[in-house]
Amino acid sequence: MPNPTAAMLVIGDEILSGRTRDANMHHLANALTTAGIDLCEVRVVSDDPVAIQTAAKALSAGFTHVFTSGGIGPTHDDITADNVAAAMGARIDIRDDARAILAAHYDRAGIELNAARLRMARIPEGAILIDNPVSAAPGFTLGNVHVMAGVPKIFEAMLAGLLPSLTGGAPVLSQSLEVQRGEGDIAGPLGDLAARYPELSFGSYPFQRHGAYGANIVVRGQDGAQIDAAMVALARLFA
Amino acid sequence: MPNPTAAMLVIGDEILSGRTRDANMHHLANALTTAGIDLCEVRVVSDDPVAIQTAAKALSAGFTHVFTSGGIGPTHDDITADNVAAAMGARIDIRDDARAILAAHYDRAGIELNAARLRMARIPEGAILIDNPVSAAPGFTLGNVHVMAGVPKIFEAMLAGLLPSLTGGAPVLSQSLEVQRGEGDIAGPLGDLAARYPELSFGSYPFQRHGAYGANIVVRGQDGAQIDAAMVALARLFA
Repeated sequence: MPNPTAAMLVIGDEILSGRTRDANMHHLANALTTAGIDLCEVRVVSDDPVAIQTAAKALSAGFTHVFTSGGIGPTHDDITADNVAAAMGARIDIRDDARAILAAHYDRAGIELNAARLRMARIPEGAILIDNPVSAAPGFTLGNVHVMAGVPKIFEAMLAGLLPSLTGGAPVLSQSLEVQRGEGDIAGPLGDLAARYPELSFGSYPFQRHGAYGANIVVRGQDGAQIDAAMVALARLFA
Repeated sequence: MPNPTAAMLVIGDEILSGRTRDANMHHLANALTTAGIDLCEVRVVSDDPVAIQTAAKALSAGFTHVFTSGGIGPTHDDITADNVAAAMGARIDIRDDARAILAAHYDRAGIELNAARLRMARIPEGAILIDNPVSAAPGFTLGNVHVMAGVPKIFEAMLAGLLPSLTGGAPVLSQSLEVQRGEGDIAGPLGDLAARYPELSFGSYPFQRHGAYGANIVVRGQDGAQIDAAMVALARLFA
C-alpha cells in the first residue's frame, strides 16, 4: 500500500521578503520521512486571505494531510485560523475549551487575558485542538489540515504531540554514496542501474569541492534488502 | 504602479525528504526584494513530470516571473527542462548554441562531451540562454519562466547575470523594532497603528529569550518617509 501523502503550507511574508530563513520545512520533512508519510509539496504564501484560502483548498484536496506553519498568534497579521476555516467551509469563533486553556495559562502567569490574547482561542467548529506545551495557545486539526505555530520551538512541540495520532506507512529508507567523479561521467551507468530497480528512486546531487566535481548518489525506497543490493551494484560501478 | 510579481518553483526530492536544506529560496527572496520584484509564492515539488508541469503552468499564469531551481544536470533525474518546455507548449531538443558552449567548455578541460553531458544542451525552442559562469551548462528563460540550477553557487551566479535584464519596481524598504513585551500586550495598539498606515505592512514576529517574550515588529513599504514616521510612532508606543 502506498504511504499517506502530505503537503506543507507556510504562511509567511517574512520568509518571502528574505527577512527570515524558514526552519520548519526541514524539520517537518525529516519527521514525516521517519513516520512513513510522503511530503510531496510545500507552498509558501504571503499573509493574504485569498492566497491562504486558495492554497489550503488545493492542498487539502490533493493530499492525505496538510501541515500549516505560521500566523496563529494574537496580532492583526495572524490570519491563518480564520482563512483555513473559510477554506474548509467551517464557522470560527472563540471556543470555550481553547479559552479555558488560555485563561488557566495566563492566570498562572499573572497576565491579563485581553482581547488580543483571546483571538488565539478562535478555533473552527469541529476542529480538534493540538496541544502547545510551550506557550499554551493551541493549534488545531480541521478535516485533514493541521494548523500549527510558526515559531520553530512551538511548531516542533506541536508536531511531536500530533504525529503519533496519525497513521503512517513504511518509513522511507535511504542510503547514499559519495562519488568523486563528475555527474557527466556517472550519468549513463547510473540511469541504467536506476532502470533495473523501478521500485527505488535514485537521486544524484552534484557538488564541487577544492575545484573537483563529485556527486552524492542517494537511493530511497521501502525495501531495505533491495536498497542494499543497489548499493553494492553502485559501489561496483563507481568505487 | 505596483511592483512586478514573482514565484519560485523548487524541484527537489532531496528537500522534501529532508536530506537537504534549501538555500536558494532565501537568496532569491533577498535578491528580489532589492530588485523591487515581489516574491509572492514558493512551491517545492518532487522530481515528477506531472507535479513540475502543473506547478509551472499555474505559476507562469499567476505571476510576472517564475524562477525555478534544480533538475537541469546530466543525470536521469534531471527532468526540469523537458517538463517546463511541455508546460509552456514548446518543443525541446539539443540546441546548437548550447552544444557549442558545452563543447568549448569540455574541450578546454579535456573531458568528453558524452551523451549524458549533451542532455544539458536540451533547450526549448525560443528560449533565451542564461549564462553559467561556474560550470558552463546554461539555464534558460522560456516565456516568463527562468530555469536555473539547484547547486547554490550556480543558482546565485545565474541569477546575478539574469536580474539586471529584468525590470524591477521600487525596492521594498523595511525597518524593524525589537520590543521586550509579549505579542498579547502589543497586539491592540499595533493593530490600531497598522490601520493608520494602510500603504505599509506591519508584521509581528514573536520570540522567547531567556524565558521572556518579545517580538520583532517589521514595517515594510516603498515610501521611506512614511516608514520613518511609523517607526517614530512605534517607538512612542512600545519603547
